[in-house]
Amino acid sequence: MLPELLATFKDDQQLLPAIVQDANSKEVLMLAWVNKEALEKTATTKQATFWSRSRKEIWVKGKTSGNQQEVISIKFDCDSDAFLFLVHSHGPACHTGESSCFHSEITL
Amino acid sequence: MLPELLATFKDDQQLLPAIVQDANSKEVLMLAWVNKEALEKTATTKQATFWSRSRKEIWVKGKTSGNQQEVISIKFDCDSDAFLFLVHSHGPACHTGESSCFHSEITL
Repeated sequence: MLPELLATFKDDQQLLPAIVQDANSKEVLMLAWVNKEALEKTATTKQATFWSRSRKEIWVKGKTSGNQQEVISIKFDCDSDAFLFLVHSHGPACHTGESSCFHSEITL
Repeated sequence: MLPELLATFKDDQQLLPAIVQDANSKEVLMLAWVNKEALEKTATTKQATFWSRSRKEIWVKGKTSGNQQEVISIKFDCDSDAFLFLVHSHGPACHTGESSCFHSEITL
């Protein structure tokens, strides 16, 4: 299954969105981006791993902060162009200290 | 709040990811894309509205299928470049008939 999914990336540079959701609370924690390498590393190490668009490098979530995300399950959507990582999070997902990056809301 | 968020779009064409989550069950239903117009329509009509990348047009979710998504809350992340719509979904989110587009899983 993983090889087939990796083959759907157009090239090594293509970035696809990965939603990170807490496996227990179901809170959506963050959205980040994966290239082929990041997805493969996530699947093989079970540590959430992304491509940092600002630093332009592979980013193992929590490697410096200690707030790792242990990946329990990787789902993908019907177009195979978006991923959903279900994780056990060690510490807050957001650099602000909030549990989720989605802590701001538009008043409707 | 909405005007400030709309101002973060680089131009009318820029697309940002919008995660759709069921407000009750917390299931992640789908990931779609919004431009400035789609986000504004979602906020003002409270009907999930996206930009269809395949059809290259504004896409009111469920307009043809009847599976609308009533938007309860719009959250945005710490970078203001991803959105989370909490919705009450009328019918399945996925065109396959599954409740969520994320119904396939990589075996870890």
